[in-house]
Amino acid sequence: MVSCSIAGMETQTRRGLFWDVLAGRVAPPPAAETLGWELLHVDPDQGTIEVAFQATDRFTNPVGVVQGGFLAAMLDDTLGPALVATLPEGQFAPTLDLHVQFLRPARPGRLVGRGRVVRRGRQVCFMAGELLAPDGEPVAVATATAHLQSAGS
Amino acid sequence: MVSCSIAGMETQTRRGLFWDVLAGRVAPPPAAETLGWELLHVDPDQGTIEVAFQATDRFTNPVGVVQGGFLAAMLDDTLGPALVATLPEGQFAPTLDLHVQFLRPARPGRLVGRGRVVRRGRQVCFMAGELLAPDGEPVAVATATAHLQSAGS
Repeated sequence: MVSCSIAGMETQTRRGLFWDVLAGRVAPPPAAETLGWELLHVDPDQGTIEVAFQATDRFTNPVGVVQGGFLAAMLDDTLGPALVATLPEGQFAPTLDLHVQFLRPARPGRLVGRGRVVRRGRQVCFMAGELLAPDGEPVAVATATAHLQSAGS
Repeated sequence: MVSCSIAGMETQTRRGLFWDVLAGRVAPPPAAETLGWELLHVDPDQGTIEVAFQATDRFTNPVGVVQGGFLAAMLDDTLGPALVATLPEGQFAPTLDLHVQFLRPARPGRLVGRGRVVRRGRQVCFMAGELLAPDGEPVAVATATAHLQSAGS
């Protein structure tokens, strides 16, 4: 059972890596499982996504807040899927770079990531997004660049 | 027993968060343990550090390479300690931003991070570094900005 909301089309009929995982045809990525990744909402036509993460005590620094690098990992796993959900079967989009600004400390617990494709070119895509604390305040924001590739190209 | 090399001074006599962890006076940060962080070399006078990480299968994406976000987490845990090792007791340096470029895919296994303080101002510090595959080739490079703060300030 998928408890998230999906705009525009049926999960079972759409193909491509993101949808194959969602429909259970492909195993979830270990990195996503490690981060407690959970899909809340996706709109592949708009290029937007909302996901949740579970920041555990294993991600914390000496003062008990989530290490910035793990917030970066969560943002990578927000912005990437925003784009990957829009890709047809056989297309991939390795991330070229990721820039994260850490706005405030984040405590362990549930964090929500919102990502969007800002511009989708023929070969290069730009994404942006933010990671929100339970009170709705952003703890970090990010931009990323990805390079579209097709299998065999 | 500390199997790393430390330039310039004795671990036991130097104080500050980095050295307290190294000497066993403070528990290692959970985030560092999750990433398999291990100190190889540190030179607080030069502001340089070399550390190793263990990228496990739990950090991989659907095609079996390490998710970029976990490489970002490793680079954060390289650049941050390069600076933190230079700080006296009672001083902290939250990272403001982190920019990572992903040069090539990284397989699970041992990755080596090299970090350096590029410029240390009175309140703002700039760091840079890279993450190397077992063959010595860089898989990702990063820059970061940190803000120096003193306890109680």
